[in-house]
Formats: sequence, structure tokens, C-alpha cells
Amino acid sequence: MSGGGGLPGWVPVRDDLRGQTPYGAPQLDVAVRLNTNENSYPLPEQVTTAIVAAVAAEAAGLNRYPDREFSGLRADLADYLTRGTGEPVAAQQIWAGNGSNEVLQHLFQAFGGPGRTALGFTPAYSMHPLLAGVQATRWVDGRRDAGFGLDPADAAAQVREVGPDLVFLVSPNNPTGTALGLDVVEAVLTAMESRADRAGAGPGARHGGQGLVVVDEAYAEFSRPGTPSALSLLPRHPRLVVTRTMSKAFALAGARLGYLAADPAITDALRLVRLPYHLSAITQAAARAALAHADLLLGTVDAIKVQRDRIVADLPGMGLQPVPSDANFVLFGGLADEKATWRALLDRGVLIRDVGIAHHLRVTAGTESETSAFLDALATSLKEQQ
Amino acid sequence: MSGGGGLPGWVPVRDDLRGQTPYGAPQLDVAVRLNTNENSYPLPEQVTTAIVAAVAAEAAGLNRYPDREFSGLRADLADYLTRGTGEPVAAQQIWAGNGSNEVLQHLFQAFGGPGRTALGFTPAYSMHPLLAGVQATRWVDGRRDAGFGLDPADAAAQVREVGPDLVFLVSPNNPTGTALGLDVVEAVLTAMESRADRAGAGPGARHGGQGLVVVDEAYAEFSRPGTPSALSLLPRHPRLVVTRTMSKAFALAGARLGYLAADPAITDALRLVRLPYHLSAITQAAARAALAHADLLLGTVDAIKVQRDRIVADLPGMGLQPVPSDANFVLFGGLADEKATWRALLDRGVLIRDVGIAHHLRVTAGTESETSAFLDALATSLKEQQ
Repeated sequence: MSGGGGLPGWVPVRDDLRGQTPYGAPQLDVAVRLNTNENSYPLPEQVTTAIVAAVAAEAAGLNRYPDREFSGLRADLADYLTRGTGEPVAAQQIWAGNGSNEVLQHLFQAFGGPGRTALGFTPAYSMHPLLAGVQATRWVDGRRDAGFGLDPADAAAQVREVGPDLVFLVSPNNPTGTALGLDVVEAVLTAMESRADRAGAGPGARHGGQGLVVVDEAYAEFSRPGTPSALSLLPRHPRLVVTRTMSKAFALAGARLGYLAADPAITDALRLVRLPYHLSAITQAAARAALAHADLLLGTVDAIKVQRDRIVADLPGMGLQPVPSDANFVLFGGLADEKATWRALLDRGVLIRDVGIAHHLRVTAGTESETSAFLDALATSLKEQQ
Repeated sequence: MSGGGGLPGWVPVRDDLRGQTPYGAPQLDVAVRLNTNENSYPLPEQVTTAIVAAVAAEAAGLNRYPDREFSGLRADLADYLTRGTGEPVAAQQIWAGNGSNEVLQHLFQAFGGPGRTALGFTPAYSMHPLLAGVQATRWVDGRRDAGFGLDPADAAAQVREVGPDLVFLVSPNNPTGTALGLDVVEAVLTAMESRADRAGAGPGARHGGQGLVVVDEAYAEFSRPGTPSALSLLPRHPRLVVTRTMSKAFALAGARLGYLAADPAITDALRLVRLPYHLSAITQAAARAALAHADLLLGTVDAIKVQRDRIVADLPGMGLQPVPSDANFVLFGGLADEKATWRALLDRGVLIRDVGIAHHLRVTAGTESETSAFLDALATSLKEQQ
């Protein structure tokens, strides 16, 4: 459990990994866990029954390898996106993995690697640079404005400046919670595409002409009304990849199922780097059973959004500054000592997340009672720290 | 489904992947499938009941992330190895992934990568060089003797010649079926360790002093009496890693669970490269339920070995040369046209494997009736080709 920081000298770990510590928030057994943006609602019995039945149907045949192409699951995920966005998404545009992290890793393996560069806009999902590192891909931290915003012209200028092979946008962004306007996504796409148009025009132009734009939409289902998904841009932009997960709105973090939608040529390329049979027969069956009950599972989304908006509404009364959120969590600033507040909350049985931004913490919107426990503990802690 | 070979030019896949085709044997719906070394026996009802009950116990809580450290599963796998070998293996020595391929990928990610070299002895498990490629690790094909054997002194000499960071041994070997004597493993370990002893002695010596020896024992449970596991060498050799899988003897290919045993410092280093929560709560629960019924599941091993030995005994009567096997499959040579024979068998509803060795094919030992179907179809096909 000590992690890479304490590895003995003889362990021949790669030089760039030595001294690192493994990614991961503390998994502590406390009453109120609001630190990893899980969905606090257990699965409804109708869904657990369906999942168990689906696994039971596969169990005797587990001696055989699973469908390597996960064709049924791809079709079901395409159906879900098509229903949710009104934009037709085909099964051939879908790719999936054991959590969206594996899907993101596939993108780095196929389109990143030695000699290639990825650009993201910090603070964003902290796994992106870690995945880049493991895949020996150069990572460039792009800039945001003081309020964690991203201006279309500025984002496009940074793309032109860096010349990345992969650009990562996160919308709604983690840890800030804010969604990007499609104008930002389109500006970045245009910047990448205009480089592609120039490809072949001179020395080094081929490399400059390559590149994909990845929009990580893990929290898309929690968006406020009027916040669009980048999925609507897919038909006109073959260099666009949109990643999603069943861990959050679908309340399936424990089942590990992430996916993406992209041009069929992109998903085809990912077959070159995926481990054979990477999705177990059980994972495929469980995910399909959950998708068949999508409406029921997503029934908790509205309740979670109410609690999120309650947090955003209540924190200013404590002298804190919440960032407006399209996700199932809220980043808030204005803390004199965020580490002391984090510890004070934990002492009261409420676990939230220190995301490494000075004077800020992040809290997941849980059930009504969990949210009350957080708000009460926070108010008490702040009073005691005064 | 076209794979990387037909990717449009604009798809910015890495140069070293362009033109490749995805790994994977055909998944065809034929009566007798003996091409991927699956266990042909469906799981017994007692085991499927236990797996379904274990999944049911997890289902409602799937909204939460799984135990990132998979502590219970690690303990159960350690218990299984300890019982099987008589050598005490501790939970801290165990690492697991979604199939042994993921465990192998973790080894490449932590200990391979740009500027590092892996050595294997071809023909062996064909995923090893593919995994090396995706992780930008230089792969060197070592030499075997004409009968696919590997001599201790020759193996050690090749290690000294290449100076690899990772050496891959496969025992029992796929696709040949032959197990390695521990003398080969020890000779390779000694060659790697003596390089390590010299580390620091001069320029470049540090790098030469690094290195692990990985023994891939996916088929260990099928070994003939007297064929030892490299697990017995673990206490004296911290640079040794032994990988295993539940896909073969445990008949759990569909559940995707591979694992390894090594020094705790090695497993600790793997936490730096694993995707967070890489093993789902369902995978952990299903694997633990299966391990609780290990004796029952492994009950098919003896029946499979009988069919394997039957294939080895019968093929010479057809003028073919089977390679003696410690695995659940048999490689056999002496075919005038292996591609014609493969096709002729498929036309008779028997799917086996063309592993790319001239005049050879590989067949999995299935049930008694599957094996009969294979032997009958092969005899008929050979007569017709005369």
C-alpha cells in the first residue's frame, strides 16, 4: 500500500514513474462519502434483478471467451445516445472499455505515444496527464482564465501554439463543474482542422496535420437546461471524439463501463490497441441490462441536481464562493485553510475531495440527507476555525 | 470490423500501428471450437449459483466504486497458489487484471517503455511482442532449437547478448505446449542477476542492472506430473514474476481474470500504472466465488489431459508429429498444406488454430466427443488431400 514513492532501489521501474504515488482518492469507511462523484443512490431493485438475471444467463458459458467485438453492447450504447440527443449515432461509432479511463488509455495508445503531444486545460480531469505519462506522450498544461473559464479564441490560439496530436476538453469540467459552450469545442476543432488542411505543405506538416479533439463528457447527464453535448458536432467533425461513462448518472461506478462516440474509422483504429476480449461477458451483460432500464436509472439525476443547486445556493451564506456547476459536484473557494476544513469534515464523518487548488474543495452532491450532513458539518467547521 | 489495415489516411494512428490488423482468432459459430484453448466444459451449476449469488450481493451497491486494492481477491488468489504449490504466497505478492493480458500490459507499462528492451523466445505467446509494441518497448525475438526447445546455457547466453529489461518465458509454452525445466528459468534468472550485481560498475551499468524475468504460466494446471512451477523460485528471486490466468483450467475465459505473483515491491510498482478501479466489483465477486469452488472447477483438468494425451497418441498414426504437451492443446507438424487442412476441418465444423508455423496447426483438447470429432475430421481431410 506504500505506492511508488517508497520503492526499493532495485525495483526496475521506469525513471519517470519513480517517486510517483498511485492515483486515487482515499477509500475510507465513513458515513457520508462525497469525494469521488459517485451517485449516492443504490440501484433500484428492478435494475439489480435485471443485472443478476443477465449475469445468470451468461454464467454457465463463462468457459468461453466473450464477444471480442461487444456488438450487442455497442448497439445498445448507440441507441441510448441517439435517444438522448436526437442525433443518430451508429453502433460502429461506439467504443467501450472498463471505465472511461480505459477508453481514454486506448486513445493515447493509438493516437499518442513517443514523439506525440497532448494538450489539456488545467485544472481538468487529473487522469488525462497521468494516462499521457504512462503512454509516453508529452503533456502540455494549457491555460484557463482566472474564473476557470476557457475562451474560444484563446483555446484555439493555444492549439495553434502547441500543435498537439490530441486535445482534451472536459465538459462539464472536473473538478470545476462548468460546461463548455460548443463555441469553444468548435473553435478548437477548427484550429485542428485548419492544421490538417495544411498537411503536406512543407517539412513537418504531415505531423502537424494529425490530431483529434477529445471531449470528456463523463458528467453530461447532469448538465443544466440549454447546455449542449458535443455529440451534435460529430456528423460534421470526423476528428471529434466524445467520451462518456456509466459510472455517474447511471450509478454504475462499480461495474466499470466507459465508452466513446467517434467516426467509425477512429473506433476501428482502437481495435489495434485494445487487449483482446477486454470486456468480460459479465460486464457486457450487466451494462446491457442497465441500459435496458436507462430511464429508471437516470431517475436519480434530477434529485441530485436539486442537491447540487442547493449547495451552490447555500455556500455564499457561509462566505464561500461555489463555481456554477453542470455536474453532480460543486467546487467551492474562499477557504482560509482547505486542508484544515477537509480534515474537520472528515472528523465529522463527511469525506469530500481536496483537488489540489489552494483555498478550494470539491464536494459531490449526494442524497438530501448526505447534503444536509455536509452543509451542517461545513458550517460548524468554519465557525470553529474562526 | 475491417481493422487497422484499411484505415483512411486522415486517421492519425501511430505510424507503427498503421497497416497492422487487430489481434484475434476468428470467432465463428461452429459446432466444435478448438481454436483458442478455452476449457470446453461449461461451469457446473454449483459454481454458477455461487457466482450469481456473489454478483447479486454486489448489485445494489454498484453505484459505488469497487475496492481499488481488490484486497479480498488478492488474499483468495494467494491462498489458491499456496494450496496448489505448497509454497507460501502472500496477498501482497499478488496482482490481478482483466485477463492476464492486462497484467502483462501493466508489466510493460511499469518496467518497459521507450528505451527499454524485452526478450522472448519465438514461437511463444504472440501477445507478448504486440503488448511490447503498444508500450513502445523494443522487442527481440530470441532463438529456440529446431524442436522448439530452449537450452539453459543458450537462453542465458542470449540474455547476456541482448541485455534486456524484461525476459519472457512461457511454460507450458503457447503454441508448442512444452513446459520449461526450472533449470532454464534459473539460468535466465542468474544471467539477469549477475548483470544486476555489476550495476553501478561503469557507464551504462545502471540500466544493464535492471530487469525482470516473467514466466507466463497460463497453462500451469495442465502440466504433466513432475513438471514444476516457477512459483517455487519466488522466495530466492525477487526479479521473478509468474503470471497465471483463470481463463483456462478454471474455465473462466469469459470472466477475464488474470494475475501474477512476485515480490511485494513489484506489485507495489504496478499500482503506479494500473487504471484506478481497473477490476469491477462484479469481476472481483465472480472470481472470488469461483476460487471458493476451485477444486470443483479444476475437476475438468484431468479429463482434458486425457484428451490431450489421446491426441498426442493418435496423430502419429496419421503420419503427423505432435509436440509433447503440458498444456490443454497440442501443436502438431507434418502437414503438407496446413492452410488447406485448417479449411477442410472448418468445412467439417471443427475450428482449430493456424499459428503461423509452416506445416503445423494447433488444436485445443476439448471434451471426449469434441476430440473425436476433431480426430475423425482430420483423418478424413488428410485422406481427401492425398
